[in-house]
Amino acid sequence: MKALVIHAPKDLRLEAYTAAEGPDLKPGEVRLRIAAGGVCGSDLHYYYHGGFGTVRLREPMVLGHEVSGHVSEIGAGVTGLAVGDLVAVLPSRPCGSCGYCHEGLPNHCENMRFYGSAMPFPHIQGAFREELIVTAAQCAVANGLTPGEAALAEPLAVTLHAVRRAGPLLGKRVLVTGCGPIGLLAIASARLAGAAEIVATDLSDFTLEMARRMGAEVTINTGSDAGSLARYGAGKGHFHALFECTGVAPALLPALDTMRPRGVVVQLGLGGDIPLPVTKIAAKELDLRGSFRFHEEFANGVLAMRQGRLDLRPLITHEFALEEAEQAFLTASDRSRAIKAQIRFS
Amino acid sequence: MKALVIHAPKDLRLEAYTAAEGPDLKPGEVRLRIAAGGVCGSDLHYYYHGGFGTVRLREPMVLGHEVSGHVSEIGAGVTGLAVGDLVAVLPSRPCGSCGYCHEGLPNHCENMRFYGSAMPFPHIQGAFREELIVTAAQCAVANGLTPGEAALAEPLAVTLHAVRRAGPLLGKRVLVTGCGPIGLLAIASARLAGAAEIVATDLSDFTLEMARRMGAEVTINTGSDAGSLARYGAGKGHFHALFECTGVAPALLPALDTMRPRGVVVQLGLGGDIPLPVTKIAAKELDLRGSFRFHEEFANGVLAMRQGRLDLRPLITHEFALEEAEQAFLTASDRSRAIKAQIRFS
Amino acid sequence: MKALVIHAPKDLRLEAYTAAEGPDLKPGEVRLRIAAGGVCGSDLHYYYHGGFGTVRLREPMVLGHEVSGHVSEIGAGVTGLAVGDLVAVLPSRPCGSCGYCHEGLPNHCENMRFYGSAMPFPHIQGAFREELIVTAAQCAVANGLTPGEAALAEPLAVTLHAVRRAGPLLGKRVLVTGCGPIGLLAIASARLAGAAEIVATDLSDFTLEMARRMGAEVTINTGSDAGSLARYGAGKGHFHALFECTGVAPALLPALDTMRPRGVVVQLGLGGDIPLPVTKIAAKELDLRGSFRFHEEFANGVLAMRQGRLDLRPLITHEFALEEAEQAFLTASDRSRAIKAQIRFS
Amino acid sequence: MKALVIHAPKDLRLEAYTAAEGPDLKPGEVRLRIAAGGVCGSDLHYYYHGGFGTVRLREPMVLGHEVSGHVSEIGAGVTGLAVGDLVAVLPSRPCGSCGYCHEGLPNHCENMRFYGSAMPFPHIQGAFREELIVTAAQCAVANGLTPGEAALAEPLAVTLHAVRRAGPLLGKRVLVTGCGPIGLLAIASARLAGAAEIVATDLSDFTLEMARRMGAEVTINTGSDAGSLARYGAGKGHFHALFECTGVAPALLPALDTMRPRGVVVQLGLGGDIPLPVTKIAAKELDLRGSFRFHEEFANGVLAMRQGRLDLRPLITHEFALEEAEQAFLTASDRSRAIKAQIRFS
Repeated sequence: MKALVIHAPKDLRLEAYTAAEGPDLKPGEVRLRIAAGGVCGSDLHYYYHGGFGTVRLREPMVLGHEVSGHVSEIGAGVTGLAVGDLVAVLPSRPCGSCGYCHEGLPNHCENMRFYGSAMPFPHIQGAFREELIVTAAQCAVANGLTPGEAALAEPLAVTLHAVRRAGPLLGKRVLVTGCGPIGLLAIASARLAGAAEIVATDLSDFTLEMARRMGAEVTINTGSDAGSLARYGAGKGHFHALFECTGVAPALLPALDTMRPRGVVVQLGLGGDIPLPVTKIAAKELDLRGSFRFHEEFANGVLAMRQGRLDLRPLITHEFALEEAEQAFLTASDRSRAIKAQIRFS
Repeated sequence: MKALVIHAPKDLRLEAYTAAEGPDLKPGEVRLRIAAGGVCGSDLHYYYHGGFGTVRLREPMVLGHEVSGHVSEIGAGVTGLAVGDLVAVLPSRPCGSCGYCHEGLPNHCENMRFYGSAMPFPHIQGAFREELIVTAAQCAVANGLTPGEAALAEPLAVTLHAVRRAGPLLGKRVLVTGCGPIGLLAIASARLAGAAEIVATDLSDFTLEMARRMGAEVTINTGSDAGSLARYGAGKGHFHALFECTGVAPALLPALDTMRPRGVVVQLGLGGDIPLPVTKIAAKELDLRGSFRFHEEFANGVLAMRQGRLDLRPLITHEFALEEAEQAFLTASDRSRAIKAQIRFS
Repeated sequence: MKALVIHAPKDLRLEAYTAAEGPDLKPGEVRLRIAAGGVCGSDLHYYYHGGFGTVRLREPMVLGHEVSGHVSEIGAGVTGLAVGDLVAVLPSRPCGSCGYCHEGLPNHCENMRFYGSAMPFPHIQGAFREELIVTAAQCAVANGLTPGEAALAEPLAVTLHAVRRAGPLLGKRVLVTGCGPIGLLAIASARLAGAAEIVATDLSDFTLEMARRMGAEVTINTGSDAGSLARYGAGKGHFHALFECTGVAPALLPALDTMRPRGVVVQLGLGGDIPLPVTKIAAKELDLRGSFRFHEEFANGVLAMRQGRLDLRPLITHEFALEEAEQAFLTASDRSRAIKAQIRFS
Repeated sequence: MKALVIHAPKDLRLEAYTAAEGPDLKPGEVRLRIAAGGVCGSDLHYYYHGGFGTVRLREPMVLGHEVSGHVSEIGAGVTGLAVGDLVAVLPSRPCGSCGYCHEGLPNHCENMRFYGSAMPFPHIQGAFREELIVTAAQCAVANGLTPGEAALAEPLAVTLHAVRRAGPLLGKRVLVTGCGPIGLLAIASARLAGAAEIVATDLSDFTLEMARRMGAEVTINTGSDAGSLARYGAGKGHFHALFECTGVAPALLPALDTMRPRGVVVQLGLGGDIPLPVTKIAAKELDLRGSFRFHEEFANGVLAMRQGRLDLRPLITHEFALEEAEQAFLTASDRSRAIKAQIRFS
């Protein structure tokens, strides 16, 4: 089969690939023809920089972890799946036997295998390939959705998890800083959980228009209009929850001033160091909580899309054939016109 | 009466003072002869610097908010108090009618009156005076304690509140960074709440010895032995909760590496900006929570001391007569030999 | 003005009434022309039985607490309201000064004044009258809604409160037992909070059809088909949360068997004693939580209707002119064809 | 080896027994010489009645699950244990691979193996035997404790788990109904978690005296003095938390009236049906939570005893040699003079 393999920064090749698993299915396994795959921020880091932080490519690696596919073969003992089913593919495979797996925290598994990650060595090969063998437990049936929607299940799970980290949002006022794919999905997820008011900020009018389509009542371009956000800081602040999706100080710091005492800041954006005013955190009793990956939220998100309670199709701004895959990477990094660029594998 | 009035940095005067309230008691009020008063960090800021941050002395102000006293007169309608009772004095007087007071968050009252605070103008005059008229609701009966112990009720309430912010500690592993009065009381409070293991860090061997007396199993002088703390970072970390009592980066940042995923950092220490590694916060799903003042914890702390479940007397390292009050301020700032310096008013 | 006054069981009179408040507005008050009023279960208890439990009518009392009205006059100091505005009327007036009010639990106020309640004596006169003077804080602007929808704000607030009592519902599986007005609103509220699956039970096909319109995926007539519910008891159970809206054993007890370990049962239905199997509660670690009235949920519910996130109009099955008000009471008690019967006051 | 085998009601035999496991140790296993074993309520049910509820003896079964022992042999790969160590034995062995084990709820394991249980067939043989092969993970080192104290680790874990179910107890007022071994350990556990006030009820002055030794400030013999409990019902109630350790209506129902709104009732006592007043549960928003077994609390309890923060030795009122074991069963059921009767195996 063919796969999209990163060899070095900007050296992405569509090339023949032989998977370590297979060719025969083991009990409990399922063979998929990959249908659609979305380019994620971490894919872009490998493409442009060969990694991020201390994580560096040390051998060629298949990229990709936001994929959907059609079931082409079913192993022994598998129930609930039929050949031809469209499935969203859970990319995280916790070990199931470490302490965190047994505490109900599989996203902190000490031996996590996540598609397309250069964190361990040998690297975990990714899912941007024509065929993939997975366990039945990794499959969330997505019949009725488009393959592209199904491939949004992974980033959606990230934001559904963040919403759980925030605590109940029913009737709450929510701020979202940064309207890239994660920020936009955070808006949709907060709305799904019953948020009463959602305000979104970004530096791009294009993404803010999308924020309104995802459910934000108010959008603020903080590049041209910082004052509109600052007004929410009157009194002791306005928002109950903040989903911080940028990882940078110019977004987080002004947002802190708009939080009510006891407000919850869910940190989704990854970045460097942010100079945090600890006296403000203490005096307002703010609560800054990290959010990382997901687990059961994956299937829940697919279900919500199938029930028609979430329509995420506007987020798929670009689709490319497998042969044009590199174009997907270049497009995905242009925030003035792209939200999610996907590759069609079949 | 006489009171301790700060006029400018290092200009502290014991002088005649006429209170705005009184001389006659209103219904529900109680007259106290102040017995003991502890010098707090904020008192020191006024003494040395005339304030902190944007808070500045703009008129002479009586200092002090950690006081106990004996009831000398009882107003109409007061029950549960008798002349001669020793009481700890609740220094925070929330308005009872703003939104936060009605949400059960009186520590975020929009019109808080806290003794000895230059935050509003006119300033709120403090409690370092010979006589004080308070409401009965401000009095926690402390009979059986020494006046000095009773005057510890205020900083104790701060740390009991911090423990509540941390969530249940029964069976949990706790780190305390910074063993000034607040750090030491955090150790005692975490133990009272059932913490299974308490490790404390500081730069002073004197305070670390006191940390052991308050209940810490392990103490680490991070000035001379940073490695002992770093070892707790093995695996994904060791501690469930951290009480950060310094407000500075050299204490907080190494401590983050010793926290387990989902660990809770309660920020008690006030300070400037700390360069927070947001990717680490996100990836470990840490939870950084501010803690500010207290309310019902005040009476609870007095009760715990009276029941013999907390012995805080070792913390009172120095006592001074009213005439020597300035000496108390100078001593309180010497962390090599003083924990809590108190003034005896009568 | 005219008001609907209950004198004794089945002795309901539309008669001239002079309110204790007014005629002039005090600062902060607003005069309303009542527009619509819904008949509630407690109104029916007064109408048919003169009370419930130990609560008995001891003097004539205006009934009603589910009302909306149009602003006809505005008192001094009121902001945010204009003559002509449609408002939903918050019927609960906590004292604001008891301990529970200061703990953030105004629904447990020790001096609660709730329209149309014979619990205290003199009774609290109700809101089924042509004109009502309220405080501005009791008014939730409902412009854009019909007066009937606005009058649903009160029972909606009851179920929004129940959803908060249940904890986060995003992605959770929910059972609702009893599809009277409260059960149906519980379905809508659980959906608003992001429940993934809602199953509803009742003995009436009419109300179950309405349950589907409110968002239930599955409905079960447990009179004719108890087995369909029992199947959810396979393994250790299926549901994360149960909203019990009947208050009777034949609904609650079979439902317990369908709950997963750690499942939460929110008890909304009032009734007599239910023989609770405590060993089952203990062994499955179930959590049976009462839910009573509401507070901030009132305004939140009105906002959700105005945002188009809740469409409750199908629940208003009958409307009667003020002169036909008794017909509204008779109709409201017929569960085979009525959900909510309302009275039009103007 | 010899073991205590129940064949039928009152047919308890000390007889030769060959364990299914062994004789050779597998990697990760440890061989123990059992030292002490406590007779538990479920042991008594088997002894007197051959079971409880639907659980019935269907084959001879070794009884016992509250045991401690000395390490006599260590299998390959075991670290942290040495021959001669005293250990408390964790009697619950969850499967580690079912859904509940992966949710962090091993006490709800679908395939739990708990010593001395006739729930599955073949029955799970118990630990009242001279020798036992366990996994290292089942061993909590108890050096410094007596074997009897170590054998209290299991019932202690039950009440530590119940305390966690109750939420934070620091500064809270607690009622304990029923002062058998579980009630008494609940008192000690609530105190360990920082409860401010503990009131205990029972029908036996002997157990109430023990309640005071465990830390209760007030004890009430509700057989002779029901009024003293009823007085706590003034206003809207007094207690924040109730640990119900009887499972019977005469204890639970009067206690409900003494609970504050939002109070938490932790149901530990097993019993039949209790006629629960659901209107009271709803109107006070009480929270009735089951508590069942434990997991990580087992090691935490042993640690707390070793640290000297819990002294449970007074609870061991009787000790019997292995040959007198039946006497232990007869004594344990006499609540007028026995709390915990233990058997010395070596």
